[in-house]
Amino acid sequence: MASEQSLHMNQGEGETSYARNSSIQNAVQKWMKPVVEEAVTDLKKFTNTSCSMLIADLGCSSGPNAVALASMAVDAIFRYRGLDGKVPPELWVLLNDLPDNDFGDVAKRLVAFQKDAAPNFGGHVLTAIVPGSFYKRLFISSSLHLVLASNSVQWLSEAPEDLRKNGIPMYDCDEGLRQARRSLVLQAYARQFRKDFTLFLNLRAQELVPGGQMVISLPGHCSNDSACQSNLRCDGTAFMLNDMASRQGVIDREKLDSFYLPMYDPSDQELREIIQDEGSFMINKILVHDVISDMDKISITPKMVALTVRAAFEPIIAQHFGSQGQVMEEFERTVEWHVGAGAGRPQVFASAFLCVSLKKKV
Amino acid sequence: MASEQSLHMNQGEGETSYARNSSIQNAVQKWMKPVVEEAVTDLKKFTNTSCSMLIADLGCSSGPNAVALASMAVDAIFRYRGLDGKVPPELWVLLNDLPDNDFGDVAKRLVAFQKDAAPNFGGHVLTAIVPGSFYKRLFISSSLHLVLASNSVQWLSEAPEDLRKNGIPMYDCDEGLRQARRSLVLQAYARQFRKDFTLFLNLRAQELVPGGQMVISLPGHCSNDSACQSNLRCDGTAFMLNDMASRQGVIDREKLDSFYLPMYDPSDQELREIIQDEGSFMINKILVHDVISDMDKISITPKMVALTVRAAFEPIIAQHFGSQGQVMEEFERTVEWHVGAGAGRPQVFASAFLCVSLKKKV
Repeated sequence: MASEQSLHMNQGEGETSYARNSSIQNAVQKWMKPVVEEAVTDLKKFTNTSCSMLIADLGCSSGPNAVALASMAVDAIFRYRGLDGKVPPELWVLLNDLPDNDFGDVAKRLVAFQKDAAPNFGGHVLTAIVPGSFYKRLFISSSLHLVLASNSVQWLSEAPEDLRKNGIPMYDCDEGLRQARRSLVLQAYARQFRKDFTLFLNLRAQELVPGGQMVISLPGHCSNDSACQSNLRCDGTAFMLNDMASRQGVIDREKLDSFYLPMYDPSDQELREIIQDEGSFMINKILVHDVISDMDKISITPKMVALTVRAAFEPIIAQHFGSQGQVMEEFERTVEWHVGAGAGRPQVFASAFLCVSLKKKV
Repeated sequence: MASEQSLHMNQGEGETSYARNSSIQNAVQKWMKPVVEEAVTDLKKFTNTSCSMLIADLGCSSGPNAVALASMAVDAIFRYRGLDGKVPPELWVLLNDLPDNDFGDVAKRLVAFQKDAAPNFGGHVLTAIVPGSFYKRLFISSSLHLVLASNSVQWLSEAPEDLRKNGIPMYDCDEGLRQARRSLVLQAYARQFRKDFTLFLNLRAQELVPGGQMVISLPGHCSNDSACQSNLRCDGTAFMLNDMASRQGVIDREKLDSFYLPMYDPSDQELREIIQDEGSFMINKILVHDVISDMDKISITPKMVALTVRAAFEPIIAQHFGSQGQVMEEFERTVEWHVGAGAGRPQVFASAFLCVSLKKKV
């Protein structure tokens, strides 16, 4: 089971850090920009009389992306307030992540952001860090105006209990068994995502003001794309670990049977259904896009892919298999080799990203 | 000049860390407890209709003390709400310190605190970290109900400009010059404290709700105690550094001339005047007490004194004199030796602590 403690990106500024290996996450944030701007414009109707606005980014991580989404929102608010000639409101930017996140880094970035933003803004831009799981209450009731989350809600609160309880691995080493249980595994993951995302929506609905907006991006796939099945990334990552177990014995095969990535990439249709069933939000829009196809192809080398996957999964892999450096070195080499080997490569990147824009019912 | 970056306590959990050398700060917090409880009782009148309360601790530092003051306030709120049989409000505990504080430690302590507090409390206890200087705006206007600060507002925003500009050292190596300039130096420090504390009061008055409470403790002295002069701690610390410069040459004497501890221990009378002149607050009470006399005498060894002073001043001393470990090792040895040498020892501890309880005018 993934404890909250193990879920964080690689810390610091080194070669394998998330700070230096998060260009895809950055591309996703840029793609979200017009949707965030629309949400801010819509918010205007609800904040005419309000002199303060609270903006939260859930799962901010660390590094240069940590402040990027919130900064985008602050810029948008500044622009429309500037056009109206109104007094700018006081803004409170609240960045959330799990307690093991690199908050030393986030604190310094927040102070720098504040220094840059305040003079342009002409008002007070205040900041805070909110440590904790977004599967619990984080903020005061009816206090938030805008909730943002990029690349975080695909992380489940835990691996599916059905699988753990019944000893069904995320990825069977035996191909026959793997095919036979594939649908069972996928359904267990889909159920866990539904449970977690329903809770996420319900908690945020308590924290948002009526009419408050929420813009979320996450890896996923298009429900019309029949070739694409969810959770390929779990399969791809487990394929790499299985290869390591069989080739070098660097990791223990038995440990692989009890390893679960607590992560699920839903389809747009799944998201729509969960949001409608939960009932607190109106859907402004749901977008699906292959963000990676927009990126500079030259930058997506096998090495870059390997480092990106390592930066995100190292803490959880190291915790499960033991924290010896050689496990992660070998993991990085294995990913790089398989990705470089060509078209039949196992998928470790999402096939698409989803962006969901919601409005809390008034 | 003390930049914001250099003002933080020693990080981590090691022998020289603030976390392990802050028993005096802990004793001060315990002394504040009844005053905090009175403030909470008074707040009751203003929060009957409110379903949320925001509590801020300014200069929380790290280690076990970081959450202690806030925890005290939450316990007090829980108790009176329990007696009234009222629905407990949602509490938001906000811990502030400068960006270089050990926020990784604070984040983990906050999450543990939340886990412990919530079941007793029966309501939501939410938490956040607010990085930044308390000589700037930190919170939304009229949002805070209770502001706490223990052992932090004696830190100035910078060393007195008059001294720096005119090249007047905090501590002249030459005793004649030191005596001649003593009053000048003290007055410059007193002016800087007045300027900073006035700003502090003004900013907090903007952030507190009308009737909101503020309880602050800081090292200081009693205005009736004619034997006691303020800023003895700066003198004592500089004496140690001067001794190091003359005996071993571990530190450069010229650098000592430009070293200022940005710190001032006021008298109760000074505090009273500044608060009245600023005008936003009513004074509930000002207490003066020799907290150290309450502590277990056996625990206050010369080694303990040396480690306590080192934990608080290491970052600022190391930054000014160069960060070689030997400077701080020698500083610790020097303090230990002089403190152990007997009654004529230079003062590195405050002679007393002040506790100020204020209420924002309605």
